Amino acid sequence: MNDRKLILDVDTGIDDALALAYLATFDNVNLLGVVGTYGNVAMGTAVRNTEYVLERLGLRHVPVLRGSSHPSWATSFIPDAGCAQFHGTDGLGGFGPAAFARTASAPAGMPDSGETGIPATSAPTYVSDSAESDMRSLISVGGYDVHDPHANPATDSFSLTFSSCDSANVPCSPTLPEGVRFIIDAVRRYGGGVTVVATGPLTDVDTALTAAPDIAGKLKLVMMGGTLTQEGNCWDLTAETNIIQDPEAANRVFHSGADTTMIGLDVTHRCLLGGMATRRWRETADLREHAGLDPSAYSYRLFSPRTLRFLADIADFSIAANLKSDARLFSAGMPLHDPLAAAVALDSTLVSCLDLPMKVETETGDSHGTRGRTIGDPEGLIDPQAPRIHVALHVEAERFMDAFSTRIAGIRR
Amino acid sequence: MNDRKLILDVDTGIDDALALAYLATFDNVNLLGVVGTYGNVAMGTAVRNTEYVLERLGLRHVPVLRGSSHPSWATSFIPDAGCAQFHGTDGLGGFGPAAFARTASAPAGMPDSGETGIPATSAPTYVSDSAESDMRSLISVGGYDVHDPHANPATDSFSLTFSSCDSANVPCSPTLPEGVRFIIDAVRRYGGGVTVVATGPLTDVDTALTAAPDIAGKLKLVMMGGTLTQEGNCWDLTAETNIIQDPEAANRVFHSGADTTMIGLDVTHRCLLGGMATRRWRETADLREHAGLDPSAYSYRLFSPRTLRFLADIADFSIAANLKSDARLFSAGMPLHDPLAAAVALDSTLVSCLDLPMKVETETGDSHGTRGRTIGDPEGLIDPQAPRIHVALHVEAERFMDAFSTRIAGIRR
Repeated sequence: MNDRKLILDVDTGIDDALALAYLATFDNVNLLGVVGTYGNVAMGTAVRNTEYVLERLGLRHVPVLRGSSHPSWATSFIPDAGCAQFHGTDGLGGFGPAAFARTASAPAGMPDSGETGIPATSAPTYVSDSAESDMRSLISVGGYDVHDPHANPATDSFSLTFSSCDSANVPCSPTLPEGVRFIIDAVRRYGGGVTVVATGPLTDVDTALTAAPDIAGKLKLVMMGGTLTQEGNCWDLTAETNIIQDPEAANRVFHSGADTTMIGLDVTHRCLLGGMATRRWRETADLREHAGLDPSAYSYRLFSPRTLRFLADIADFSIAANLKSDARLFSAGMPLHDPLAAAVALDSTLVSCLDLPMKVETETGDSHGTRGRTIGDPEGLIDPQAPRIHVALHVEAERFMDAFSTRIAGIRR
Repeated sequence: MNDRKLILDVDTGIDDALALAYLATFDNVNLLGVVGTYGNVAMGTAVRNTEYVLERLGLRHVPVLRGSSHPSWATSFIPDAGCAQFHGTDGLGGFGPAAFARTASAPAGMPDSGETGIPATSAPTYVSDSAESDMRSLISVGGYDVHDPHANPATDSFSLTFSSCDSANVPCSPTLPEGVRFIIDAVRRYGGGVTVVATGPLTDVDTALTAAPDIAGKLKLVMMGGTLTQEGNCWDLTAETNIIQDPEAANRVFHSGADTTMIGLDVTHRCLLGGMATRRWRETADLREHAGLDPSAYSYRLFSPRTLRFLADIADFSIAANLKSDARLFSAGMPLHDPLAAAVALDSTLVSCLDLPMKVETETGDSHGTRGRTIGDPEGLIDPQAPRIHVALHVEAERFMDAFSTRIAGIRR
């Protein structure tokens, strides 16, 4: 068999959805499962969004598993306004399952949209699933402690937070999240034959490595996150969004010995998807709808016109949000952060990497650097055995962008 | 003629002195002149130290010129305790011209040691040579504004400061420092045939480029400073010492279009000179003293036993200071920051570079990053014409270290 086994760990998320869409165009990709975790949205929302997106992509058979609901350093998590700005408060630019439910009857197999049943006005109760008493009150708002001046909860984040643990009637327990167990089992079974693609915080991967240190030497990881040679996208321009969510977890992963490729802003900011691509998707959808089509005449697995329009809708939301945030840097479109990580998992030749021992700074201040910064680990200067991370510093952007846009459109070859 | 024309711009400094020593071993290096600037020490001290070191190295004929006495953002400069810790308050680990004067009669052509004539207890008077009134009170202490909590003047820095402008009876003037004029003239005359090696702050180079923009397209610069993939060596571990002195100047140089190679901590922290090397220099000095020698039997220009011991003395001071500052990172010795830059000017194959548009952050805080950080310029992501800096990320450390240690010793080949 020539298929590529993947597990995705996502916080879906517009670009997470586009990453899944890209993978869905490959016949030879064997998506073993997708783990939904907190990050762009709360974990429960990520799980529902992921199920919804897979359904739209014709991948209803792929198992979706629940990952971590909060970072390793906190006991609960609230999505922040920054993520809502780039992904919408539902994580899918307003085109998520709730919107779908408003315009169509939910297809069989779709989960109930639990969010609407939760009163957004009720006072939040934070669930602690840690025995450490000093962690009881730690609440992460998009990576920042709730008392940090940068903590800026999204408008309806309280209702979203409920969904992360108790609203789905799943008891919180000190056992491993099912998604983490899934990762451990798969890596134990397939070793380097499966690639874990993490497009959100590294909490799940870290938890897996901590619970099952035996998998470190076998784990093949492609992660979207961090930045080495470009400015970050958090407040101080030093940290990157996925890493600031859980710097301790990322630091442990970097030192675990896992075969890790870091797809950071160094390369993702060079892969911008613009309105020309989404217009092409919409035109293709129109043509396909009116002309009928013979799927056998196409090179790739084809999306329905409705799915194509959905992908164009969420991408257009992100394109507009990025343009609004930085009219110059993102004038050409939205960065394809997560899709690039997925693509590199299939074709590592898309990027050139610097192999470097890496650390994540976990404190801010004199002699500490800046919390969340991904930077060379001085340990590597003195210890030739220090684990090296493959840090992508160059990307064949044109080749990737062309493949991405064309595969989604499913153009006849 | 196969000789290599160089201008050095130095803030001598122990490793500046070792860079000059390395260059002195080459017969085919044509050192057109050396500019002394503020940085590790005050400008006046740098000039005297440079003259002293060149004298010891048998390079008395090389002109030494006065560079900038303060950064572009301030009107005066005080060396800080950090530099004094690594270089001694005299810049040469206590083995500078004053120490020499105590143990021997000063050789002809050596300048008077002006420092001792200045009462260290007198109140400092800061000299302003800028017409901008808002700059009148800006005093840099090792790169930090005098009111910054990190500003930490070296013990006798007030006396050193005096020497930078008025103590040598040279009137302060708004005209260009002679060292800057020297750089402009040489680049206009030789173009890329001369390489400027800057091992201190980039104030002189920036001033030259601003005063004579026509040289930007011709200037070939190898600079020691900055860091891209490793932590910095200033308080917040983000900035590097040379850059924090004058971030605005460095930022302008990065955008000037000059052909610039950045030798930063990425590579210099991999080139550590330890006690074994300096012991070898001392043993060679002893042997040479007692056995006599035939210079024609040696491959390199030879240093006298006294000079070899001087180089071992200053290197040992730095080796001990670095060990004290970080027993783990510098257990193998002192980083050869400036010598590596000098070596790369002669042999660019010693390093591999990432060509990247670079910026220097000039402010600290939300949406600004950290003052002094050298990082990729997002402008380069959207403008293919943005000037690219050759950022050294890999060094053939063993080859360089072997050449350096062996050439200084002048071992028979």
